[in-house]
Amino acid sequence: MDPVWISDLAAACDLPVATVKYYLREGLLHPGEATGATRARYDDSHVRRLRLVRALSEVAGLRLDAIRAVLEAVDDESRSWHEAVGSAHARLARADVVTGSPSLPRVDELLRRRGWHVRPGSPHRADLARALDALASLDHPASDDLLDRYAQAVEGIAEKEVTAVTTTDRATAVEHVVVGTLLLEPVLLSIRRMAQEDASYRLRR
Amino acid sequence: MDPVWISDLAAACDLPVATVKYYLREGLLHPGEATGATRARYDDSHVRRLRLVRALSEVAGLRLDAIRAVLEAVDDESRSWHEAVGSAHARLARADVVTGSPSLPRVDELLRRRGWHVRPGSPHRADLARALDALASLDHPASDDLLDRYAQAVEGIAEKEVTAVTTTDRATAVEHVVVGTLLLEPVLLSIRRMAQEDASYRLRR
Repeated sequence: MDPVWISDLAAACDLPVATVKYYLREGLLHPGEATGATRARYDDSHVRRLRLVRALSEVAGLRLDAIRAVLEAVDDESRSWHEAVGSAHARLARADVVTGSPSLPRVDELLRRRGWHVRPGSPHRADLARALDALASLDHPASDDLLDRYAQAVEGIAEKEVTAVTTTDRATAVEHVVVGTLLLEPVLLSIRRMAQEDASYRLRR
Repeated sequence: MDPVWISDLAAACDLPVATVKYYLREGLLHPGEATGATRARYDDSHVRRLRLVRALSEVAGLRLDAIRAVLEAVDDESRSWHEAVGSAHARLARADVVTGSPSLPRVDELLRRRGWHVRPGSPHRADLARALDALASLDHPASDDLLDRYAQAVEGIAEKEVTAVTTTDRATAVEHVVVGTLLLEPVLLSIRRMAQEDASYRLRR
């Protein structure tokens, strides 16, 4: 698009101008091209970034500090494609490294059963162990059978998801991984909840 | 367990006493049995509730107001089992009713293809439409093929998840649905991310 003012930018992203100014102040959006002391013009790159920030906030439910961390990984040009993807992925995880979780051996057994290559320091391994610990503490343990069903359900899809990122442009590739991971998660979860609603209707009405 | 003081309760749940007091003030934890002006004793029901609050906060990542809404649905004895489950489920959703989302027809087509019974007012239907809108706005649309894969992956599991709640005690049943929905989601997502890590390792190293 041709360069536009901030009000046009806000309208293009369906956001209040105040929100756009807030994201600018917080450094989540790069400055426009200054055309005077208080005016600046914006382009497609701003529209795209704003839509990403908005989706991470409203759809993925991330807090501002988490959005900032993800964007830093996306923007850090000093990192390779792989490093940036790994870093963005890691920053999405909840847990720090967990030691002494009673469920870690179960996670590792699952990985062995599936033959998956997951780094010992992967935050997802720790996230899973923590969730299993919490379920056990609430007398609602997740069975190995259920874990295997989940694993089987997602492993066929993961390859398709990863190969969908075919672009070689680094910034676009990293952004795609972030979007694919974070915004497809609400998609998967909404579908799971609807499947449960349907099962509940069929089995319990 | 035998009645204990607040310090024992905090220790049993691996939480600071200040956090337990905060949850008491905020009404997320029911008061103990008063034994003096400033002392009270707590029992198993407090341990169980505290573990639930902690898991909803730390593992499921819910904010305090969302935790409160979920607990209200769990605790409201005036509702039937089904109403309470439906209400708790609904409060977990992000979206309000969405009208005019360009993706709603795609959601309804998906439901028709699967033959799923989902109420038109289901918040998960709106959540899914919103997530699809966001993906499309970021030039990263989710294909019908991917939606069908997700649906196929979860529909076999949903029945098992729903029938796992076999208890007839209302409060326990509702709590199980909440725990099963909210805490199995991080389990599913962690497993998905590990499957992606594995696929990325195999396909891109």
